Amino acid sequence: MSDRTIGFIGLGIMGAPMAKNLLDAGYDVVGYNRSQEPVDEHVESGGERGDSPQDVAERGDVVITCLPDSPVVEDVLRRDDGVLAGVSAGTVLIDMSTISPTVTEDLAGEVNERGGEMLDAPISGGEEGAIEGSLSIMVGGEESVVENNRELLEVMGETITHCGPSGAGQTTKACNQIVVAAQMVGVSEALVFANQAGADLKSVVDAISGGAAGCWTLDNRAPSMIEGEFDPGFFASYQYKDLRIAMDAGEDFGSPMAQTAVAHELYKAMETTGRGKDDNSGVMQVIEDLAGEEARVE
Amino acid sequence: MSDRTIGFIGLGIMGAPMAKNLLDAGYDVVGYNRSQEPVDEHVESGGERGDSPQDVAERGDVVITCLPDSPVVEDVLRRDDGVLAGVSAGTVLIDMSTISPTVTEDLAGEVNERGGEMLDAPISGGEEGAIEGSLSIMVGGEESVVENNRELLEVMGETITHCGPSGAGQTTKACNQIVVAAQMVGVSEALVFANQAGADLKSVVDAISGGAAGCWTLDNRAPSMIEGEFDPGFFASYQYKDLRIAMDAGEDFGSPMAQTAVAHELYKAMETTGRGKDDNSGVMQVIEDLAGEEARVE
Repeated sequence: MSDRTIGFIGLGIMGAPMAKNLLDAGYDVVGYNRSQEPVDEHVESGGERGDSPQDVAERGDVVITCLPDSPVVEDVLRRDDGVLAGVSAGTVLIDMSTISPTVTEDLAGEVNERGGEMLDAPISGGEEGAIEGSLSIMVGGEESVVENNRELLEVMGETITHCGPSGAGQTTKACNQIVVAAQMVGVSEALVFANQAGADLKSVVDAISGGAAGCWTLDNRAPSMIEGEFDPGFFASYQYKDLRIAMDAGEDFGSPMAQTAVAHELYKAMETTGRGKDDNSGVMQVIEDLAGEEARVE
Repeated sequence: MSDRTIGFIGLGIMGAPMAKNLLDAGYDVVGYNRSQEPVDEHVESGGERGDSPQDVAERGDVVITCLPDSPVVEDVLRRDDGVLAGVSAGTVLIDMSTISPTVTEDLAGEVNERGGEMLDAPISGGEEGAIEGSLSIMVGGEESVVENNRELLEVMGETITHCGPSGAGQTTKACNQIVVAAQMVGVSEALVFANQAGADLKSVVDAISGGAAGCWTLDNRAPSMIEGEFDPGFFASYQYKDLRIAMDAGEDFGSPMAQTAVAHELYKAMETTGRGKDDNSGVMQVIEDLAGEEARVE
């Protein structure tokens, strides 16, 4: 498979190490990024320089995008020198950004019109996962296209799950963030409550972690939450952005999310109170704010 | 320790097998229940019959209560022939019901005034846990009283955690139910959303279970939720009652619970739509109701 040339757009914290893994696996990788420094580093690692998204798409058999949000992905595809201008019959676009499922469906239609194929393939696993090639990749699109590109995806990720038609990867990522937020806020409300009630928080966590309340947040974040430590991890502002995608998609698909709406508002408060760069478990501080000045857990 | 006589009040689904385990461990157990059939069975198993809560308290060195809710516990303690009328110096009352932490504190004070000691020791682990003696027991009260009664508690439970002063056991149980409900509702909102979006639900669950969204509900309930199967398990009406305790306690302790409040309302809808005897994962059906007639997952 390494005779295929890969275009890679978005050499950020996640994209740069993913492109590096593709180079190390023997692929030719044409990189593009708005700022040039990451492209220089990409070239130093053995990659090629792309002049524009269109140039990258014209030179690549596969084009991977790894970008911050829906508007950026839409712009990079649709602008005059964008990806769509360079797509030809057989081009495969793999969007690994976390964006809206319905925007994804629209973009896939536009790629199809030009004879190309599109997969949505958002990721989880963080910067370490990107460096180690151990990302979890949630894929939406045609089964045959997924299978033809599985080997390529396996260079970047450890778990590749095909979740359904175009948009299903983004839908799955949204589901992930809905459940993560529910846990983060639930554990936060429980810990602030237990602290106000005068219980011993470590004992509370020990007592409930092994049963039906057991979850990743209790196992991996509750100990630091109790200490008032909120170094990221996963930025609260990313959790907020991802919850907005989920809320917007719930609007599009007619799926009410009463509980997720509350989590969304609490993560909004992480932004408004200047805590967007804290870990997503830092939402506990918003619950503390609501409980008043005396309510700090640490 | 089996030279101590145990009074046991509340021989229900949970209480009866717990009392049986105490008998099997060699304790003398005086049983009391409002209806007589469970007491008859208790006597057939080698137990003694108590005539009233007061009688049980007068004859027992330790009195265990395992009752449905705060008002019943308050009545069984405070009425004319209640437990408090029979408490004397050295009596230990262990309330294993799930009730309000602040009611617990009040009752503990009244027991103390009569020279007795009280532990709150709510349980989780269900009917199987009660039968097998493998319950998780969350204990609030004086350290020395907990230690003096640990051997007795270990007859009924596998994990005995001392969580703080009087009320801390109930607080911990409330925390458990807050986190359980957050998971149940979060997974429900995610699954209904994914279904509306046309994703493959089994793949969605597979893709997100291993990461930061991982939790007991995804592992143990999502497969049956996808099939539309909601046999209990743990009754939705009990989840609702326990969330009301948490909300009331949040009121008492000044601890806001915006997300838990939504879960509380959704479990209320389980009652109002006649689904209280479904499993607590059945709250997904309320989300489906909200999404409209076409939105059934199964």
